[in-house]
Amino acid sequence: MSKFIEIIEVGPRDGLQRESTPISTDDKIRMIHNLVDAGINSIQVTSFVHPKYVPQMADAEDVCRGIKKKEGVTYSGLVLNMKGLDRAHDAGLTHVDMSISASDRHSRKNANISLEDALSSFKDMLSKADELNLNVRAGIQCVFGYYEPDVTQEIVLDIVKHYVEWGIESLSLADSTGMANPAQIKEMLSAIKPVIGEIPVVLHLHDTRGMGLANVVAAIEAGCTRFDTAFGGMGGCNFIPEALGNIATEDTVNMLHAMGYETGVDIEKVAQVSKHLQTLIGQQLPGKMYRLVG
Amino acid sequence: MSKFIEIIEVGPRDGLQRESTPISTDDKIRMIHNLVDAGINSIQVTSFVHPKYVPQMADAEDVCRGIKKKEGVTYSGLVLNMKGLDRAHDAGLTHVDMSISASDRHSRKNANISLEDALSSFKDMLSKADELNLNVRAGIQCVFGYYEPDVTQEIVLDIVKHYVEWGIESLSLADSTGMANPAQIKEMLSAIKPVIGEIPVVLHLHDTRGMGLANVVAAIEAGCTRFDTAFGGMGGCNFIPEALGNIATEDTVNMLHAMGYETGVDIEKVAQVSKHLQTLIGQQLPGKMYRLVG
Repeated sequence: MSKFIEIIEVGPRDGLQRESTPISTDDKIRMIHNLVDAGINSIQVTSFVHPKYVPQMADAEDVCRGIKKKEGVTYSGLVLNMKGLDRAHDAGLTHVDMSISASDRHSRKNANISLEDALSSFKDMLSKADELNLNVRAGIQCVFGYYEPDVTQEIVLDIVKHYVEWGIESLSLADSTGMANPAQIKEMLSAIKPVIGEIPVVLHLHDTRGMGLANVVAAIEAGCTRFDTAFGGMGGCNFIPEALGNIATEDTVNMLHAMGYETGVDIEKVAQVSKHLQTLIGQQLPGKMYRLVG
Repeated sequence: MSKFIEIIEVGPRDGLQRESTPISTDDKIRMIHNLVDAGINSIQVTSFVHPKYVPQMADAEDVCRGIKKKEGVTYSGLVLNMKGLDRAHDAGLTHVDMSISASDRHSRKNANISLEDALSSFKDMLSKADELNLNVRAGIQCVFGYYEPDVTQEIVLDIVKHYVEWGIESLSLADSTGMANPAQIKEMLSAIKPVIGEIPVVLHLHDTRGMGLANVVAAIEAGCTRFDTAFGGMGGCNFIPEALGNIATEDTVNMLHAMGYETGVDIEKVAQVSKHLQTLIGQQLPGKMYRLVG
């Protein structure tokens, strides 16, 4: 088993998108530079979503154009539709994240579209991304259920089969509601393995119920070596105390290093980014390690 | 492997002892009754420590005498010295928790005694507990280090060997600083197994670095079936934001149930105790699940 675990920083997107205090474009760019300086080699920098829905992401283009890109580092943006693909391309990105929800209920509620229709439009988006020469990380949200166990392994496997048929280069599985438990993580990854073959799989975990790092260990035992994390455990919502964030970059990296894995990430430098954000928003972040180091 | 995991509630002691808001004796007794009503079969109710050091525990005797004891439930108290043994016995307890630290540095700093001397006085306390007909859970603190990896497997094994020689009935291993990682948990438990044999082992984990539940899973995989937990993840300190608490009863039980284990504990009822304490102290507790249920 490889001792290297890849950390994909999603804080500037998933972490900030629900943050109510406006963060300036300059601060966002500085944050991204500092995270890359901390050894992050893959970072989701923004989301191309209508500013009416996510005002924090209204400066997506300015952020992308303002970054001094470092060679060898992947900078990606989240896109939700055809227009988002054009925007990401025009902003100079080469990598995008796109996903659909495995929960039909969530898909209808969140995106006003059935799972079936979402799958079909995903195929069209893949074609367009190909035309625009954009590398796509194809994601599935709510892989472990949407606030109740409404997603079966069959539903997930069916989406993965379509993705593989359509030639995706990378798969992302999100536990969007933080419901997954370690046993379920192992079962799901084992079931997906024969279908996905050698295509890289990334796990995107939330720590809503405290199982985040337990799920990381279970996933590694099932062969997964790539994780989305957010500095300071960002990704919750100021107004909903029970909506806790992504697994924290510092906490994840600290555990991995303690267990003998390598990540190339400097915890103290990431913690400094978290502490700076804490100052900007005037609130403690959900992560733990950033309080102890940096 | 047994599918039953025993949850030992330590919130009324380890959870409250560092809480600065005074909690009334009546509130403490109600808390203990409600936790037992939630299915807790083993509960640490107080600590017999000098009130000058821990004012919150000044009512130890009153709490013990005020509890309506339910048959089949184990009520225990933490004792630090000979006087504590007398106090626990006089207060009507039949079970006590006693421990020494595996970190000589911690022992000298915290208890002003070397590890060697602590071990020798522990033997005397065991004899006295025996005379008083008190059941002892013999503990080791800082099994995984005291803020740095200063404790070796050899030191821990040496203490366990002494404990076994002295006829202990139950062993408790504490990750007092929340430093342990899942790989270390497995290694330590595997090393201890041949020495401890069939004597029950309890793991006492803190979630300081977010690895609490990951360590629970690792310990279960290594054969451990007993865990100390605190309702609401209590056990931190209001004045030290980085000192986070014990693993939360609700979070632990939720994960275990999701993974197919049984505990006999009703999460919603425990969460109600946490919510009540949150109201009393006017602060959010570190636990996660209590915010989502109850």
